[in-house]
Amino acid sequence: MANFELMRELARAEGGKIILLVMDGLGGLPRDSDHQTELEAANTPNMDQLAREGSVGLSIPIARGIAPGSGPAHLAMFGYDAIEHNVGRGVLSAFGVGVPVGEHDVAARGNFATVDASGIITDRRAGRISTEKAAERLELLKTIKIPGVEIELASEKEYRFVMAMRGDGLSPHVLDTDPQVTGKHPLSAEPGVPKARHTADLVNQWIAEAAKVLKGQEPANMVLMRGFASDPKLPKFQDVYKLNPACVAVYPMYKGVSQLVGMDIIATKSEDTPADEFRRVADVWSKYDFIFCHVKATDSRGEDGDFDAKVAVIETVDKALPTLLDLKPDVLIITGDHSTPATFKAHTWHPVPTLLYAPGTHMPDRAQSFGERECMGGALGQFYAVDLMPMALAHARRLEKYGA
Amino acid sequence: MANFELMRELARAEGGKIILLVMDGLGGLPRDSDHQTELEAANTPNMDQLAREGSVGLSIPIARGIAPGSGPAHLAMFGYDAIEHNVGRGVLSAFGVGVPVGEHDVAARGNFATVDASGIITDRRAGRISTEKAAERLELLKTIKIPGVEIELASEKEYRFVMAMRGDGLSPHVLDTDPQVTGKHPLSAEPGVPKARHTADLVNQWIAEAAKVLKGQEPANMVLMRGFASDPKLPKFQDVYKLNPACVAVYPMYKGVSQLVGMDIIATKSEDTPADEFRRVADVWSKYDFIFCHVKATDSRGEDGDFDAKVAVIETVDKALPTLLDLKPDVLIITGDHSTPATFKAHTWHPVPTLLYAPGTHMPDRAQSFGERECMGGALGQFYAVDLMPMALAHARRLEKYGA
Repeated sequence: MANFELMRELARAEGGKIILLVMDGLGGLPRDSDHQTELEAANTPNMDQLAREGSVGLSIPIARGIAPGSGPAHLAMFGYDAIEHNVGRGVLSAFGVGVPVGEHDVAARGNFATVDASGIITDRRAGRISTEKAAERLELLKTIKIPGVEIELASEKEYRFVMAMRGDGLSPHVLDTDPQVTGKHPLSAEPGVPKARHTADLVNQWIAEAAKVLKGQEPANMVLMRGFASDPKLPKFQDVYKLNPACVAVYPMYKGVSQLVGMDIIATKSEDTPADEFRRVADVWSKYDFIFCHVKATDSRGEDGDFDAKVAVIETVDKALPTLLDLKPDVLIITGDHSTPATFKAHTWHPVPTLLYAPGTHMPDRAQSFGERECMGGALGQFYAVDLMPMALAHARRLEKYGA
Repeated sequence: MANFELMRELARAEGGKIILLVMDGLGGLPRDSDHQTELEAANTPNMDQLAREGSVGLSIPIARGIAPGSGPAHLAMFGYDAIEHNVGRGVLSAFGVGVPVGEHDVAARGNFATVDASGIITDRRAGRISTEKAAERLELLKTIKIPGVEIELASEKEYRFVMAMRGDGLSPHVLDTDPQVTGKHPLSAEPGVPKARHTADLVNQWIAEAAKVLKGQEPANMVLMRGFASDPKLPKFQDVYKLNPACVAVYPMYKGVSQLVGMDIIATKSEDTPADEFRRVADVWSKYDFIFCHVKATDSRGEDGDFDAKVAVIETVDKALPTLLDLKPDVLIITGDHSTPATFKAHTWHPVPTLLYAPGTHMPDRAQSFGERECMGGALGQFYAVDLMPMALAHARRLEKYGA
């Protein structure tokens, strides 16, 4: 992670204003026809101009070879190490579906699974049941009441869902009930520390009820729970970086992660285009010195495997970019949280094209446009995403010199 | 930091001879007229030739985005992490102004500050009082005598100064008296460990006297002390790298840091030019297998904001370089401890051009000259300064193979 102790020591409350524009899953791979990636193929005169004038490089989201989810990838861009900061999977999943997790709440990931007549697991993913069918089963689970706690459930993709428990005296230190193999019974929820006994008991009661209401609902006739977690109480941007930050994002997950690190969440509408989002940035620009703006569709079209549609999203962003440029941010960073090449239809580990434009403080390099290959020889080199915030602060002249 | 355990295991006492030539603050940024940096604009036929034949790359002094002082930056080039090795700010500041700190001494940084009639801090930096005015106030402080200890004081820049205490039974474990905010009284110096009680008492006595002699000297009518530290007793080059090292430097700070890591200090004169320094390297070349040679003026001219003068210093170094080349070092590294772009008039975080010339062991790349942009695509890539020493030793064939 970014060295927070050092950041706390060196960060100044005064300095330039920063925009971090994240195109989710921006990085791509070349298509066969012309050997261009999505970003290279896109017509992006504005970003190309910024690349010619500023610094470019490649961001490594978590570690080389690691394809991250958007939760840990965003935490990394914000300077936080998801492992170091013990942000549990349950919390990240909950944010992913817009379920809030307070400091007294416990969230966990759930899988629908298949068990045989004797209760032995035969499929840990319920035949990868469709998202729609899983949502129907989730309605059954929502009928379960456990005295003393409120339970919120939300579908993720296919067989995955999220459960959040709210009540008094809950502890996140409950071990997984998923044995990770078929041919065994689900594990009973066990406390990882003595004070989690009560929570484990509640989880076991709920699972017992779940098994009852799912009886006969093959292939989804059981649930497996893992990644119990509560609010990780992350250090906040105000404290660590002395920034007054805001988030402009449409999807709940990104608002959730931003809230975790202390950002104000600017209201958006689900149908907002990148141009709409940029106008929202402009609307609140005078109030903040750091704005994170998130564009989701690059990732979605990459996941769809639709190369041309991803190119089109990038072009839409480029076309709307003058709205941000007109604000004259001291530092504008354009990057992605990870790569989602259309040829892969999935998140990958490939380092992500990154552009840093900070007139007067950036080091110009030889890049002539914004794209993967141009970024390879850029001034920023290849760097870990957790180093992005110190770089942003430095270029905004918001860091004191370290040592004499 | 460089992995000292590994270095101790792998370093051999035999092998090639190394020169580390450091041009302080070498890295720069482009000027408007021709978009060239200082190093790119300089006429450097010798270094360009070495760049064509050898390896180049960019050194990250401490961490991305961090603009270091020369103290921690030099420690990093020598393989030491200033944080990890707990080299206190007081010691680094003391070295910065040429105040020696022995293992029984304690040094601290001081700020002149402003307090109101009731002793509440109203300005932690005494209105950023000028260096000259601060020096006058320091003369008042020099009149203070505390029985049992000798006190040395030296001006840093503006409101900053250094205090070193020498006496029996001193401990560096004294907490800061700077509360870091205005609107409060200065803190009393408290011991961080019981045995530091005596030192804290002495510090409090001194501060009480300081308040008396500074009475009426607004805006500098109080002192705030922080970063108490003593000699960090760093592992020595002989022990870690099995090198017999020497330092040729003119400024006290660099001699001080070199002494901390076990280098012999070669006598120099304050008026020595780079050519003079190189001749001193030649004079002692037969006695050492590692010589660190430090040129200060690149940084000074960068701090002045004098682009052309910094270019001229680089050209002077290049012209004198044959004196070093004639020694036929097995490894010659030319780098800087950090960047000091003339356009910034200050240390910055930008990675520093680095050249490694080791015929027979270096990997030639495509660089055609020595400059920031050429270094971006070089064989050394972007690397952390703490990795420079392992690279130097490797190219000098002074490291055994690791593992079977």
